[in-house]
Amino acid sequence: MINRLTTTDAGFDTRLDALIADRASATDVAAPVAAIIARVRAEGDAALIDLTTRFDRFTLTSATLRVSTAEIDAAVDALPQAQRAAIDLAATRIEAFHRAQRPADFTFTDADGITLGLRWGPLDAVGLYVPGGKASYPSSVLMNAIPARVAGVARIAMVVPTPDGVMNPLVLAAARRAGVSEIYRIGGAQAVAALAYGTATIAPVDRIVGPGNAFVAEAKRQVFGRVGIDSIAGPSEVLIIADADNDAHHIALDLIAQAEHAEDSQSILVTDSADLADAVAAAIGAALQTLPRAVIAAASLASHGAIVLVRDRAEAVALTNRIAPEHLQIMTADPVGDFAEIRHAGSVFLGQYAPTAIGDYAAGPNHVLPTAGTARFSSGLSVFDFLKRTSTTSLTRAGLAAIGPAAAILAEAENLAGHGRSIMDRIG
Amino acid sequence: MINRLTTTDAGFDTRLDALIADRASATDVAAPVAAIIARVRAEGDAALIDLTTRFDRFTLTSATLRVSTAEIDAAVDALPQAQRAAIDLAATRIEAFHRAQRPADFTFTDADGITLGLRWGPLDAVGLYVPGGKASYPSSVLMNAIPARVAGVARIAMVVPTPDGVMNPLVLAAARRAGVSEIYRIGGAQAVAALAYGTATIAPVDRIVGPGNAFVAEAKRQVFGRVGIDSIAGPSEVLIIADADNDAHHIALDLIAQAEHAEDSQSILVTDSADLADAVAAAIGAALQTLPRAVIAAASLASHGAIVLVRDRAEAVALTNRIAPEHLQIMTADPVGDFAEIRHAGSVFLGQYAPTAIGDYAAGPNHVLPTAGTARFSSGLSVFDFLKRTSTTSLTRAGLAAIGPAAAILAEAENLAGHGRSIMDRIG
Repeated sequence: MINRLTTTDAGFDTRLDALIADRASATDVAAPVAAIIARVRAEGDAALIDLTTRFDRFTLTSATLRVSTAEIDAAVDALPQAQRAAIDLAATRIEAFHRAQRPADFTFTDADGITLGLRWGPLDAVGLYVPGGKASYPSSVLMNAIPARVAGVARIAMVVPTPDGVMNPLVLAAARRAGVSEIYRIGGAQAVAALAYGTATIAPVDRIVGPGNAFVAEAKRQVFGRVGIDSIAGPSEVLIIADADNDAHHIALDLIAQAEHAEDSQSILVTDSADLADAVAAAIGAALQTLPRAVIAAASLASHGAIVLVRDRAEAVALTNRIAPEHLQIMTADPVGDFAEIRHAGSVFLGQYAPTAIGDYAAGPNHVLPTAGTARFSSGLSVFDFLKRTSTTSLTRAGLAAIGPAAAILAEAENLAGHGRSIMDRIG
Repeated sequence: MINRLTTTDAGFDTRLDALIADRASATDVAAPVAAIIARVRAEGDAALIDLTTRFDRFTLTSATLRVSTAEIDAAVDALPQAQRAAIDLAATRIEAFHRAQRPADFTFTDADGITLGLRWGPLDAVGLYVPGGKASYPSSVLMNAIPARVAGVARIAMVVPTPDGVMNPLVLAAARRAGVSEIYRIGGAQAVAALAYGTATIAPVDRIVGPGNAFVAEAKRQVFGRVGIDSIAGPSEVLIIADADNDAHHIALDLIAQAEHAEDSQSILVTDSADLADAVAAAIGAALQTLPRAVIAAASLASHGAIVLVRDRAEAVALTNRIAPEHLQIMTADPVGDFAEIRHAGSVFLGQYAPTAIGDYAAGPNHVLPTAGTARFSSGLSVFDFLKRTSTTSLTRAGLAAIGPAAAILAEAENLAGHGRSIMDRIG
């Protein structure tokens, strides 16, 4: 049902490395994606209309590319009140957490009378890719659009493929609640190209975020430079550190919740309790029987899941820092103290009442997080992804006289005499 | 000598677009770079030694890959005192500005009793690429290494090719002053591969920064994902907004200073004064005659430089936001007021005594900045490039009961019943 490892086993390191090896599939779609981008640049709306007919099996016009206000109204009005309230609760909490992230500008004048500053400002326009069909998640709309809105981005253009013309009303409701400005019913590499280069109907944006399939990821890679992009997410993962004093059924459900995303998801329990390890293994089997996505979850747990028995807390910490998990649950007697020793993790859930699933929807922190060990050097989506910094330097003649000669010495050493002159002729 | 444009000319937009069109050359070196990376991964130090013999014409061993402390001591000791003092002044100022950027962690507990937090932490290890030969700039060593050190990065591994075995003592001195931990005398795609994957002698890092040629840039692109990378810098550029009340000679030198970097650099003056425009054009010719890199600067100004006559302040602001320059000098009666209307610029220099050249060396803000209009969505190098964020979520049973049902409704709507169960079974 799930792999069992013990750190004292011979070959533990090799088995662990094999388990956490890259699970992302590497389909090479560079050539077809380049062709699609070239077509959208050359033909604009006409290319979008033709490719949508081909891939999504319905007919668009330039006038219907954009989802109308009336369509969004109708979809939102038809939703059960409980779903609208759930979206609102989640959005309100996500907004509160991201508002707390907003950085402050600063300016200071130093002893030489030189004034330096840093100013943060929002991007003008952002594109949000939302997958269609089964992977069309309203929660992802909230998690991607709200940080942009909180950062102060004035224009958020969303694209979402609608196979056979069918829209997901919850996605439309989430977009409205999150402050999305425009919604276009297109997807794939062509939608990314339209956001990056613009067409007659769709104005270009400055940065494109949001998950997508291999074509979408490759298209983002190819338009990078023209616009900014977010990182390319790999399969989702959770690591749970738990001591003996835990409910095995709850942990089993946490592992399954991660595993039910897709067969390449990864769920790992790290515990110093052999009893808990056995109990969770047993509880997984029982819990799976009651869940609709049991087949997917079971395949994920069998291929990529693991229960790792460690000797002590130090081993658990070392293992976690080695894996650098996307999601980390710390279910120990002192979760805050244990977290202080964790150097690499995307989002951390502390204690027994903080399952990763609550963070996927409604806790407030972002659920777009670094996967595959990239938490070593990168972070989850935030307001910082939608802000840029400009530094400012203001000098008086005296200030320039104080530091200019040193700069001119370095310029001279770098054979850039013009640099030195542009400084020294002002104070000479 | 330099292109002259006026916003009221017929065809102004077309001419401007042509001038600011992408100046980066696109050499396709993907295949040879992939081969070099594969060799370093397979052969480690041996590949580095062989490729260094081939490209840099001197013989290394595993024992001499790393520059010794004695070599650094000797280089630093032999430097003129004025150069050492200049490096120290620049480093001290860069440190002060980057220390002011350090963000604060936060934690708050909301009305539902839910505690959310954000913790910043440094990367473990960073690699710094420093070009060799003529483009081996001590100022770049300071600008890349100091933000990492201020962020708290414990290990900074620097690579610098030393053609024919010749080292630049100022680069070694800057590395020591900036807190670089290790220096290796290798360069090219092989050095990037060594930093990303490690060899027997060089431990792998988490992120690689620093400028380089087309092979280095392509190697960084190829190892991205395994490690983080900084953005790929294009040719350097300055835009100067100046009113009539300015010294034409100073502005001419500022334009030349940018142009002397390389023939693909870009210098643009935007002014509402026809007299200043004429005076600067004349002053450029005079100033060039006194400068050693006049041929390069003249070629740059002729191909990519421009003096643009605008009707008023509003046109100057609009033009600047359209170009989104790497460096912006605002030399007007109210530079702070004018800056408030600038949305896109990498680093801004305010007033008549703040030439871009002072920022290249010693003002304090970083000189690694977004080029080619990417200031629309990206920022200069900073401590943020060497930090990552981890969000934290801590709930009580009551907190989970307050928000869990809404999350479960969304999970149900997304067909992820296991997510709902992992929440609801805890509070049921």
